[in-house]
Amino acid sequence: MITASIVGATGYTGAVLTDILDGHAHVQIKTLTSKSYVGRRVSEVFPHLRVQGIYREYSLDAVQGSEVVFVCYPHGEAHSVVAELVEAGCRVVDLSADYRLKEPRDYEEWYGFRHPRADLVSEAVFGLPERYRAEIAKARIVANPGCYPTGMLLGLLPVVDEIDESGVIVDSKSGVSGAGRTPTEKTHFCSVDENFKAYSEVGHRHTAEMAQELALAAGRFLAISFTPHLLPVDRGILSTLYFRPKAGLMGTEAWLERYRAYYQAEPFVEVCDHAPSLSEVVHTNYCRLTVREDKAAGVVKVFTVIDNLVKGASGQAVENMNIMFGLPEDAGLRRRV
Amino acid sequence: MITASIVGATGYTGAVLTDILDGHAHVQIKTLTSKSYVGRRVSEVFPHLRVQGIYREYSLDAVQGSEVVFVCYPHGEAHSVVAELVEAGCRVVDLSADYRLKEPRDYEEWYGFRHPRADLVSEAVFGLPERYRAEIAKARIVANPGCYPTGMLLGLLPVVDEIDESGVIVDSKSGVSGAGRTPTEKTHFCSVDENFKAYSEVGHRHTAEMAQELALAAGRFLAISFTPHLLPVDRGILSTLYFRPKAGLMGTEAWLERYRAYYQAEPFVEVCDHAPSLSEVVHTNYCRLTVREDKAAGVVKVFTVIDNLVKGASGQAVENMNIMFGLPEDAGLRRRV
Amino acid sequence: MITASIVGATGYTGAVLTDILDGHAHVQIKTLTSKSYVGRRVSEVFPHLRVQGIYREYSLDAVQGSEVVFVCYPHGEAHSVVAELVEAGCRVVDLSADYRLKEPRDYEEWYGFRHPRADLVSEAVFGLPERYRAEIAKARIVANPGCYPTGMLLGLLPVVDEIDESGVIVDSKSGVSGAGRTPTEKTHFCSVDENFKAYSEVGHRHTAEMAQELALAAGRFLAISFTPHLLPVDRGILSTLYFRPKAGLMGTEAWLERYRAYYQAEPFVEVCDHAPSLSEVVHTNYCRLTVREDKAAGVVKVFTVIDNLVKGASGQAVENMNIMFGLPEDAGLRRRV
Amino acid sequence: MITASIVGATGYTGAVLTDILDGHAHVQIKTLTSKSYVGRRVSEVFPHLRVQGIYREYSLDAVQGSEVVFVCYPHGEAHSVVAELVEAGCRVVDLSADYRLKEPRDYEEWYGFRHPRADLVSEAVFGLPERYRAEIAKARIVANPGCYPTGMLLGLLPVVDEIDESGVIVDSKSGVSGAGRTPTEKTHFCSVDENFKAYSEVGHRHTAEMAQELALAAGRFLAISFTPHLLPVDRGILSTLYFRPKAGLMGTEAWLERYRAYYQAEPFVEVCDHAPSLSEVVHTNYCRLTVREDKAAGVVKVFTVIDNLVKGASGQAVENMNIMFGLPEDAGLRRRV
Repeated sequence: MITASIVGATGYTGAVLTDILDGHAHVQIKTLTSKSYVGRRVSEVFPHLRVQGIYREYSLDAVQGSEVVFVCYPHGEAHSVVAELVEAGCRVVDLSADYRLKEPRDYEEWYGFRHPRADLVSEAVFGLPERYRAEIAKARIVANPGCYPTGMLLGLLPVVDEIDESGVIVDSKSGVSGAGRTPTEKTHFCSVDENFKAYSEVGHRHTAEMAQELALAAGRFLAISFTPHLLPVDRGILSTLYFRPKAGLMGTEAWLERYRAYYQAEPFVEVCDHAPSLSEVVHTNYCRLTVREDKAAGVVKVFTVIDNLVKGASGQAVENMNIMFGLPEDAGLRRRV
Repeated sequence: MITASIVGATGYTGAVLTDILDGHAHVQIKTLTSKSYVGRRVSEVFPHLRVQGIYREYSLDAVQGSEVVFVCYPHGEAHSVVAELVEAGCRVVDLSADYRLKEPRDYEEWYGFRHPRADLVSEAVFGLPERYRAEIAKARIVANPGCYPTGMLLGLLPVVDEIDESGVIVDSKSGVSGAGRTPTEKTHFCSVDENFKAYSEVGHRHTAEMAQELALAAGRFLAISFTPHLLPVDRGILSTLYFRPKAGLMGTEAWLERYRAYYQAEPFVEVCDHAPSLSEVVHTNYCRLTVREDKAAGVVKVFTVIDNLVKGASGQAVENMNIMFGLPEDAGLRRRV
Repeated sequence: MITASIVGATGYTGAVLTDILDGHAHVQIKTLTSKSYVGRRVSEVFPHLRVQGIYREYSLDAVQGSEVVFVCYPHGEAHSVVAELVEAGCRVVDLSADYRLKEPRDYEEWYGFRHPRADLVSEAVFGLPERYRAEIAKARIVANPGCYPTGMLLGLLPVVDEIDESGVIVDSKSGVSGAGRTPTEKTHFCSVDENFKAYSEVGHRHTAEMAQELALAAGRFLAISFTPHLLPVDRGILSTLYFRPKAGLMGTEAWLERYRAYYQAEPFVEVCDHAPSLSEVVHTNYCRLTVREDKAAGVVKVFTVIDNLVKGASGQAVENMNIMFGLPEDAGLRRRV
Repeated sequence: MITASIVGATGYTGAVLTDILDGHAHVQIKTLTSKSYVGRRVSEVFPHLRVQGIYREYSLDAVQGSEVVFVCYPHGEAHSVVAELVEAGCRVVDLSADYRLKEPRDYEEWYGFRHPRADLVSEAVFGLPERYRAEIAKARIVANPGCYPTGMLLGLLPVVDEIDESGVIVDSKSGVSGAGRTPTEKTHFCSVDENFKAYSEVGHRHTAEMAQELALAAGRFLAISFTPHLLPVDRGILSTLYFRPKAGLMGTEAWLERYRAYYQAEPFVEVCDHAPSLSEVVHTNYCRLTVREDKAAGVVKVFTVIDNLVKGASGQAVENMNIMFGLPEDAGLRRRV
């Protein structure tokens, strides 16, 4: 039985994480912390959750003794808590971006803060199991990937060596839960309903993470033009990825074969023949994807779908915990959340 | 007063067209035909329409005497009716694809039928006012553009000379009304709601029309990789267009300036600074668009939104009629439908 | 040409009102005021509106000279502005609840404030044209009805004399725009989407207004049990009304006849045979309704639909203005907004 | 290990049932039959299901040997298959209405067919565990309740003795999956989206079932005026129930106490203080409800929510199976489906 706590448990990712851990046979939840809901019951804040528990204020004391702590603070607020927890002997899965980038200066450029812990930045492991499983197993800090990078990287890892120098177009469409639980004009029902739009049309922060990991996988820099769009749905991200193959065309079936071979042993990546839809993966930890060669245009298209709150956040966080503690990678992750 | 009829008036485009013509100060509706609803009142079939009228069966007699006839038949079924009407002296706006392609053989490749009227194919004018206004004014047959091509062409016409040889990525997202009114598994509420997916991932028929018109505008062939997706909304298309500029980057503001200059006299194209959303154009005949330079990736992104049933079909059809009959181009088209 | 101003023009009702007045052939908009958007252009705050104009801070000076002023302030904040405007010689349509109740003490009970202007309360006319047309024509202050009372009263006025002493059940379902534009947890997309619930399950404030007007129409007190529910749609209210007929059953057709006779001259009430849906009235000023006798249960059911922002607010406000100034009652109100 | 088969497994209830049984630790699925999808894989027809299996044509041979068979045929088509199965020694949970009504002649009145098996009609047990648990345990045929009756009965069983002679108003709002998987104009996305309406405004078939079971529970006839409405959501039913208490008012808290006491031992009924929303129960087998006394109107209001496909159909069917075979009542029913 692993003792786990969640710091910042009352956002959308916190709620899903609470749900998964509560149903996980090898986990005992120790502490759930919150800034706004101290003293309130879980079922009061999230009436759809049938989980016992009361939110407490964060303090090192409150979570100490947890073997693993999930940190769900916003970017810029997580890094110091993560550092404190690690130094107190906890292993940490950080769902913020605070340890995802390898180059400390990048935090200034992309997130607007100077990172005080270059040492931990270099120690942290990027928590994409399909790529860093072995490193995750031994990590003290796992930097859980962003939702967009997860879908995009799973869609390109098998073919990084095939992408020509013009790089990649990443056209992503996300449900509203990705924007977080704080009410804003942008997330007002009447703003989103029957609507659709692009946002952060150039330079969305996740670009940094995508570029870093794609370059590491490819062994060379690949340009990424990333455009997120806001779908009138609660959950899910579909990314349509476009690239030109370096070595020329080879037919859709050959590309599919490549993907099937690459992912054949993966528990949570499903290569399919048809164009996958959000409904096939929402509320699960699966990524489903397919590939098409557009012969006339000389372009390869990849379609990936994930649930932004599960494989794109809390599900993958638990997958990482499973790896860190030697549990079956899918423990607690086969039921819908 | 122009006498107008609609052949095939009980699909979604027919309903919107009926609504526009009913509110058009210079038009008198003569005949509305239908295959499935002969003898039924308009308000019975479309309770939200407050239009007098009863659907009749199509015959040349039933519509003869109309100065203009709008044909809303499916592809492959329209061409013979169009031919018959033109030969009987009516001017026709054809909302099907049956006269959009210039090369008769293309109908076999893309639509699976042998076109019997090469003469009329070569006579027909592609009904995109922003490009063929003068020709439309004199046309007997206007081939009203497809919904996807409309949004895509308006987004690229100002920059066709700037697109490099790698061509264009067209990532489009459409509301469900674009799939027509016939109930299918794909348009069942429970299939679409809270969902999102790509379809016709390679080789959607509208590619032919896009390629033809882009080549004509550019004076050279430009590859197009087009991917439509199905949004859980009733109406609207957002197209995200990607290309690499031949002559290098020049900054977003310069691109915006190019678009503003190109469209400054256009009544229905609005160049805006922000990324436009569907809600800004649905139920109107406007196309709204903006452009962004993604410097890091060397890519230019264009975002266009239209209502697929208005500027993408029936509104544009009326715009074409206005041009054909010397009316103000926006007559009947400033109110919401 | 009537000169009109809107005080508090940047809520949802303000936006719809701006749109209607902008398209109204007999109105010139003088001033639009806002608390949060002073100095911003209309098209910036509401990109779907193609209306010229800049929001100004409210002051008597800023609106003086307007023949009519529409006040769209929240309950409790409107009454003093209304008083000030009337005393300065403007006629006012107040979209808040501040002059709807006839008994000054009711404001304390239902709205929590002591009304300082009993004189104006008794002068104000309840702005339901179907009932108070003559009084509205002469009014200085028109208290524009609430959205729920509008749909409910139109559904019961023809039969007030038939309702037995057990009173009326009012089961209403409203779109989210009725909750206003301020972002809250309740109006977050992810709270509303794919969801449905009752709220203010007992004692919603509109009950007071319904009870007052139903009693005035019936000449006796009639108990009302009102329950509002929140629909995952932008706009529209459907109210299902239940009562037992005093004099016994007479068959659905006889009830329909009663309604048709009562409303035969009304420009904006449509009695229909089928059960009306929201889509038939949203974006219009129409109320559509039907009636059914449930013989087995001894109950009569009435179904009414309106657009909460149009007939339930801004459209009706303009209808009242039309009556006040001797214009055709439907001036500016036949187009979709 | 119980061997189970599903006859008619490719509708929405069949899909949910397949999902539940596949995840049920004590069940082995033997045969899934379908009329339209013979030979197709489950995952092909329902890509969101990760269940092995191929649909077969129905024959007694194909399912014989199953200890329990779930019949998901339409009303009128199920009764003969049920009879055949029972006579072959299977126990049956019938999800159609074919054995719900106790009076054989009622099938003619409400469903339009003459029931050939009065013997089995009188033997069948109405499968509402909260009321007939003991009888279900021994039943050969369990007539699984309709979705609307389930929510309504759970909302009224604790208070049947308190309802006055005017009876009950049942105002229900259901998601679209309740209308089944066959595409029709009514279930087309564009008909439902952003819309809301009543249907079967008087005399919906479920009224018979509600009336029968309410009378049996109360020991007297109680009039029911039932009105279903169609919500623009996939799943869930909220029913708002109104009645006048025979013995007068006693305050909301006392009513809540009554409900809590009645349901305290029930595994799937949750009495809550707040007004429950669909999102709290969809994809689960729970019914959540609350009660309010509207003192001013002399009315008691009950709000119940269920998932129409789970507690309103397939979940309750499995709950019945669990009872029939002596398994824990919640076996296989605590995970989301």
